[in-house]
Amino acid sequence: MNDHEYMNLALSLARATLGQTSPNPSVGAVLVKNGQLVGTGAHLKSGTPHAEVHAIHEAGSSAEGAIMYVTLEPCSHQGKTPPCADLIINTGIRKVFVATLDPNPLVAGKGVEKLTKAGIEVEVGLCQEEAIQLNEKFFHFIQTNTPFITIKAGISLDGKIAAKSGDSKWITSPESRQDVHHLRHEHDGILVGINTILQDNPLLTTRRPQGGINPIRIVLDTKLKIPVSANVVQDRSARTIIFTGNQIDLEKKKELERLDVTIISQESSTLSLKEVLKTLGEQQIISVLVEGGSEIHASFIEENAFQQIITYVAPKIIGGRDAFSFVGGIGPELVKLGKQLRFTEIKQLGPDIKITAKPLKGEESEECLPESLKN
Amino acid sequence: MNDHEYMNLALSLARATLGQTSPNPSVGAVLVKNGQLVGTGAHLKSGTPHAEVHAIHEAGSSAEGAIMYVTLEPCSHQGKTPPCADLIINTGIRKVFVATLDPNPLVAGKGVEKLTKAGIEVEVGLCQEEAIQLNEKFFHFIQTNTPFITIKAGISLDGKIAAKSGDSKWITSPESRQDVHHLRHEHDGILVGINTILQDNPLLTTRRPQGGINPIRIVLDTKLKIPVSANVVQDRSARTIIFTGNQIDLEKKKELERLDVTIISQESSTLSLKEVLKTLGEQQIISVLVEGGSEIHASFIEENAFQQIITYVAPKIIGGRDAFSFVGGIGPELVKLGKQLRFTEIKQLGPDIKITAKPLKGEESEECLPESLKN
Repeated sequence: MNDHEYMNLALSLARATLGQTSPNPSVGAVLVKNGQLVGTGAHLKSGTPHAEVHAIHEAGSSAEGAIMYVTLEPCSHQGKTPPCADLIINTGIRKVFVATLDPNPLVAGKGVEKLTKAGIEVEVGLCQEEAIQLNEKFFHFIQTNTPFITIKAGISLDGKIAAKSGDSKWITSPESRQDVHHLRHEHDGILVGINTILQDNPLLTTRRPQGGINPIRIVLDTKLKIPVSANVVQDRSARTIIFTGNQIDLEKKKELERLDVTIISQESSTLSLKEVLKTLGEQQIISVLVEGGSEIHASFIEENAFQQIITYVAPKIIGGRDAFSFVGGIGPELVKLGKQLRFTEIKQLGPDIKITAKPLKGEESEECLPESLKN
Repeated sequence: MNDHEYMNLALSLARATLGQTSPNPSVGAVLVKNGQLVGTGAHLKSGTPHAEVHAIHEAGSSAEGAIMYVTLEPCSHQGKTPPCADLIINTGIRKVFVATLDPNPLVAGKGVEKLTKAGIEVEVGLCQEEAIQLNEKFFHFIQTNTPFITIKAGISLDGKIAAKSGDSKWITSPESRQDVHHLRHEHDGILVGINTILQDNPLLTTRRPQGGINPIRIVLDTKLKIPVSANVVQDRSARTIIFTGNQIDLEKKKELERLDVTIISQESSTLSLKEVLKTLGEQQIISVLVEGGSEIHASFIEENAFQQIITYVAPKIIGGRDAFSFVGGIGPELVKLGKQLRFTEIKQLGPDIKITAKPLKGEESEECLPESLKN
């Protein structure tokens, strides 16, 4: 195996932990000595040892003089665990391949600097693009202090998310709906508008055959219209946060709070999405999956408050002038005033097509990225 | 090369003539003797020699004792040209591979029967699926006497074909718009509703860098609202047919007819799509490309009057409750009452995705298909 293949192995280790390390990034590390694998590790959960630590422990005495392949720059600061850079130096690692620098201002090149000063050979940039992509949610959060937003919708070929009656069961295939549960597992939060609660009364939990982590449920409900009987209120398998305006029934608020629902009331009669994102960021919610409906999608899109759109397109025509479109809102007068995206992944999923789109490159601000991360 | 490869060559010859043989099918033939290619041919245009004739002429004296690979059953009847089966027999062809039987009731197995009776070995079914697919428009027409309908739309990721103002320029990329000109070349007719004429005043001609055939322009215009100045009226590079109801301005009708526009008035104040298709079939229009707008799409889809839907999905969000959706109409109350399709091709085209969908198999009637064509 060559350097590239060892780094890919480390990336695979990291990828397998997606969704379980928040607010930390997913990181993998492997140790190689005399052309043989001597240690492997991944960061498994916030507050537990980093990938480098696991790999070094696994290698034992073989770690001395070994080469490390790690997907993110080793940390140089004392966090919940001691700095990995120190451990690497003390262990006598000979060389370190780092896929990408850590955008966290507490690290940001300092880990590499520490290693280099201690005489360890360091190479940065092997599989860099994959490494950044892997932790795109973490990178976004660290740079903006607001969560990475994925807008997700199951749509018909004609772009509808519900028939005119509001009925939406089911547009997409079981394969697509299963995939959505992976998405929920991989996001810290899941956000819907009050209309989705009133129409579908969803649980918004992660239901994967292999288990998974439930995202925190977030409901935008300006007037606190949510029924106390709603599934997201009564079901205790995940936390629920409701954002409201300042004109709400305070008795109802208390009743919901007694049921452990968090109510965050903004100081205005309408909701500010910007404020919502800021508050979620303060709560260390790295990523949020937005699951509708039409008007919620429109708000996020109009305010450019999204990093990714995932649609599951079903081979179905719903039709109807009054059916609910994927994106509602006021909408622009001219096509050229719409939002320009780029498709980043197209995948067949059972009978459906999963399409991932991101804001067009260049329309995103890359200002916060260290020089080495720009591509 | 093996049998499969020779038949694929014959299919490639046929495929290169798509759009130019109507109302005849596209057919290719190759002749092989002693493991060497000795003749090739394609049917180029209605009224001119069939593929088998060209291949036999090219082979000259080598044709005797050769093996023929032909994508459609050789004809047995005297049409505009003499029966190919007779020529094959008289030439002394040793064996004939036929990809698929001709669904035309005038042939339908009689060609193969004639060859077999003359002692020629015949094998039917090599690459049959590709051969049927290649001539799907012809097969549909022969079996129903109505044109094969392709609904085509350039849509945003949120399923819109125009912003709320009606503006639709441009949703898709130059690559997609170029591909539409191939579609126009491959269809006999192109159909739009009067609103598309009033909104966009399109030419509806085929504009390919390599040239192409203009489809016959068909406008559904119940009340004959079309302006005499419309491009489809004034431009003489293609024929224009307008379908109207029975309550129209007869003076305007005459004026349009003086400009060589064909006006077909139905005996009712509203248009019957079924009647439109029947009339087009009587005019030997094998295939029609339906290019919108929303309400025209809805009519064809609601009446199950389509064989194919091609969407060019652009990486763009238009948004807006009042923007024009790909499919308008009244629409069903429930999602499960929508039209179920299957995706048959997904292709990246520049920044866009081209998605081809067909009615779900089993919902199409296969009753008219000869046993050998069912799959």
